[in-house]
Amino acid sequence: MEKIVRVDTRKRHVTQYQVTEEELHWGGRGFIAHVLLREVPPNCEALGRRNKLIIAMGLLADTNVTTTGQTSIGGKSPLTRGAKESNVGGGAGKKVARLGIRAIIIEDLPTKPQTDILEVDARGARLVEAPELKGLLVDETVAALRAKYGKKVGIYCIGPAGEMLLHGAGIACPNDGDEQIRFAGRGGLGALMGSKGLKAIVIDDADTTYKAPIANPELMNETSKWLSQALLTHPKTENRNLFGTPAILALANSSGLMPTRNFSSGSFELADKINGETIRDTILARHGKTGRPCVAGCVIQCSNVFVNQVGYKTVASLQYENITLLGSNCGIGDLDDIAELNHLCNQVGVDAIETGAAIGVAMEAGLLAFGDAEGAKDLVRQIGTGTHLGRILGNGAALTGQVFGVRRVPVIKGQAIPGYDPRGVKGNGVTYITSTMGADHTAGNAFETLSYMNVLDKQGQVDISRTLQIRASLLDTLGLCLFVRPPFLKKPENFGKLLEGRYGWKMSEREVVALSFDTIKTEREFNQRAGVSEKHFPIPEFMADEPLPPKNAVFDVPMEEMSSMWDGFVPDKLL
Amino acid sequence: MEKIVRVDTRKRHVTQYQVTEEELHWGGRGFIAHVLLREVPPNCEALGRRNKLIIAMGLLADTNVTTTGQTSIGGKSPLTRGAKESNVGGGAGKKVARLGIRAIIIEDLPTKPQTDILEVDARGARLVEAPELKGLLVDETVAALRAKYGKKVGIYCIGPAGEMLLHGAGIACPNDGDEQIRFAGRGGLGALMGSKGLKAIVIDDADTTYKAPIANPELMNETSKWLSQALLTHPKTENRNLFGTPAILALANSSGLMPTRNFSSGSFELADKINGETIRDTILARHGKTGRPCVAGCVIQCSNVFVNQVGYKTVASLQYENITLLGSNCGIGDLDDIAELNHLCNQVGVDAIETGAAIGVAMEAGLLAFGDAEGAKDLVRQIGTGTHLGRILGNGAALTGQVFGVRRVPVIKGQAIPGYDPRGVKGNGVTYITSTMGADHTAGNAFETLSYMNVLDKQGQVDISRTLQIRASLLDTLGLCLFVRPPFLKKPENFGKLLEGRYGWKMSEREVVALSFDTIKTEREFNQRAGVSEKHFPIPEFMADEPLPPKNAVFDVPMEEMSSMWDGFVPDKLL
Repeated sequence: MEKIVRVDTRKRHVTQYQVTEEELHWGGRGFIAHVLLREVPPNCEALGRRNKLIIAMGLLADTNVTTTGQTSIGGKSPLTRGAKESNVGGGAGKKVARLGIRAIIIEDLPTKPQTDILEVDARGARLVEAPELKGLLVDETVAALRAKYGKKVGIYCIGPAGEMLLHGAGIACPNDGDEQIRFAGRGGLGALMGSKGLKAIVIDDADTTYKAPIANPELMNETSKWLSQALLTHPKTENRNLFGTPAILALANSSGLMPTRNFSSGSFELADKINGETIRDTILARHGKTGRPCVAGCVIQCSNVFVNQVGYKTVASLQYENITLLGSNCGIGDLDDIAELNHLCNQVGVDAIETGAAIGVAMEAGLLAFGDAEGAKDLVRQIGTGTHLGRILGNGAALTGQVFGVRRVPVIKGQAIPGYDPRGVKGNGVTYITSTMGADHTAGNAFETLSYMNVLDKQGQVDISRTLQIRASLLDTLGLCLFVRPPFLKKPENFGKLLEGRYGWKMSEREVVALSFDTIKTEREFNQRAGVSEKHFPIPEFMADEPLPPKNAVFDVPMEEMSSMWDGFVPDKLL
Repeated sequence: MEKIVRVDTRKRHVTQYQVTEEELHWGGRGFIAHVLLREVPPNCEALGRRNKLIIAMGLLADTNVTTTGQTSIGGKSPLTRGAKESNVGGGAGKKVARLGIRAIIIEDLPTKPQTDILEVDARGARLVEAPELKGLLVDETVAALRAKYGKKVGIYCIGPAGEMLLHGAGIACPNDGDEQIRFAGRGGLGALMGSKGLKAIVIDDADTTYKAPIANPELMNETSKWLSQALLTHPKTENRNLFGTPAILALANSSGLMPTRNFSSGSFELADKINGETIRDTILARHGKTGRPCVAGCVIQCSNVFVNQVGYKTVASLQYENITLLGSNCGIGDLDDIAELNHLCNQVGVDAIETGAAIGVAMEAGLLAFGDAEGAKDLVRQIGTGTHLGRILGNGAALTGQVFGVRRVPVIKGQAIPGYDPRGVKGNGVTYITSTMGADHTAGNAFETLSYMNVLDKQGQVDISRTLQIRASLLDTLGLCLFVRPPFLKKPENFGKLLEGRYGWKMSEREVVALSFDTIKTEREFNQRAGVSEKHFPIPEFMADEPLPPKNAVFDVPMEEMSSMWDGFVPDKLL
């Protein structure tokens, strides 16, 4: 059976115990939601003694189902002040699962500033002081940990931004072989990890004796195979494999929803220079890599390795969100500049979305010009060195806007809006406002609705966002990547089959939806008690007042419709 | 009848109209509360188009009752995100009242950055561009306005901090003769004024033809005389006249509730150097002034003029809150240093309480040492010049704490705690948490309870805070200074007599309490809709966890008791 590891950072004491029958039903984001509601006072200080950093594996994490190496990392967010789950690929998650660990719950605060490593292995877990890691960049930290622990361990770590408790800080997770640095970027969880005195968590699954109890191996294998096959033959997968997430950039731009110059436009005149095709061509011409996995066993393999003109890795993976926020949103249209900015964010350990938005706000304030790539890089470097200006930017777009008296600040619930302007795809606006996660596209991305509905019409957006939020929450609870959605749309019953295969639970589609909704409902309860309901954090006013060129829509979905969207919701079908 | 002036800063258009019968019953803080709830979306951006800056006179402002020159200034606070009323003395309020104006409501935002003067006089009101005032310090602004408008006008203005929209900015109001600069300091209302493009409001009552309709002149005069006489013969008044608000410093220190070194102690080893007696002795020895009024017709006259060693004015008036926050809280025990810090805050136009707390937090972060007076002065100067660090500090203690990763941040609802540590006088903790105003002693100061109850016992604090909040709200609604309370304690019916004298309303004590509660209730409704209920903003965790030396109490009044304190409240008696 699966176990939970609890780490008391004050007493420097670790306990382990088997999950209860109730906890067994909580996976990934759902596990985080329940622990938050059960154990963390919703009105507590996010970087105080009462908050907890929770690393939780999805319900299918210890199976061989594709993409299930995703880790859910969460806690009360310093940025949104609500429940937060940030999902990350990389190599560590699968190793946590192989150790039979459902979750690691990190509690309390050390009595004095610490730079610790949490070692987790088959013998147990322990805090180890590592002052030599203090202040290191993410790559430096990974290198130091490799020197100490070898190539096979999994790593979660923070950069200097997390150590400084900057609210834009994320948690890095390299993949196997360290080709890529993935980030649990959103919500300032790097600051939460930093507050616990933790520089890194090292997962060594070498001597594990855990074997996942598969209730129905035949059903499990069959459904797992179906998923891999269905993904491999799905046209979206091929597109993602070839072009990665930047595949959508051209459409985002032509649809007029791509954040440009601090969300003052939805299309960027240099979009052709930074779109998916250009990225692929550039990478191939320079002998970089495309079609790379971020977790072991992923059949989609949407990642890339962006290299500079002499073929040296700049950043991996270069993704749509980061390109828009660090690129078009800052008026920067050069891929090498954008890749380097992304790399710098990864090194100092800040969310590239939040940081790109913050730089856009700083440009709006006149600190530097839109398009000033060298100036932007300097700002990110300053985050890492902790100058006053760097600390401002590193705390994200909302704080940067406050400090510099900027009125056009693209945040909802204190968190920067990602690469889909709510005026250009209104379903995303609904998600940003109503989701428990604040402005987070992964909580229910309506980009796909471009192909089947009028994304500028305020009608119907609440309904579609609700459906998308349920789907997103389900995947985050099972531990699947969001990109596995397409095949399930025709066979939603296969979610239940996977759970039956692993646990023996016989779940109807309705019960699967209820499992997903349970996560959302639990987070909503936490958020309401924390004081961050949607009705208190509406659309930024400039997005209600200023039409977004070139489509010239404002965001106009009524708050009453949004704030009541879950009232009387009865789990039914996934579609 | 009294009128309302509305200023549309976008259309640069002014309208005036008579108050309705309903509005006639709204005074000062109550007027602000009702306009906020009626006209301002509670979840709006505080510095956006939908918020309003409201300048409102109390119900007795156009009478000759002592202290009624106080102005209530309010709006949705950028700092607390809730309803805000900040009360200020000075010369302008009485002139507003003499013009027959109950309130000035300033709406919307200019389409481009403006530096305007709002001229208000017997002919009407108008916005006048005044780019020459841009960036001027408060004294410079006042001098420029005197040169243009003469010595007899009333002035409200902001310093550079308000122009920069820093959330710690206040609104200055010189008294007649400009001896003193009073501040509507709390809640960041200077930023709200700055957002409207307003550098100053100039009140010229020279040609007024308004005569307040006094319903019962005899009763009015009689009760007014009683109040003045009763105040003059009350021992507290004499004490306040001799020593001003610093009169309480020695007791605050010996009681162990005086904020010291970022709220790490409740008593300061240099208290003797900065207490009321020392201040009086110093001022008299240097030929400064004590016993000065801040509004015309005040019989208490608690203000002083603190001068330097050669008799030149440093600041007027030097008050308890500012001495503790800029002094003991920063480990600074020299009166000249504190007075200069206070003067600098007044010049750049920031709340000295918020700024003192922010400097204390910066000292805790290690930016400068506790006791470094020159370093502290440099910080305040940097606020005025808008350096990155200055902008951080100028946004207050909460933001400063976030930027520098400080855990011990003495704020409630985003606003700095004033000169009474909640652990040392628990009634104040209850007020800070439950009042609509955030951490604001003027919303119900329990300092007086030192003389009649155990201020360290968690029992009974909610009851006393409720009583004090009702009293404070009543005075803010009538437009009386908080210091007129003592005589009313024996004759609470005289509140009703004053209102009957002015308006002919026959109000029982219960109805007077209901009038006060109506203000609180209205603000609470606004705050709840804005998402800033007390249960989301509890005591800072360090005050629940760290005993405060020397009395070593923690703040332990249960939240359930506080959050339910107005449930089923029935207005009854004032005591």
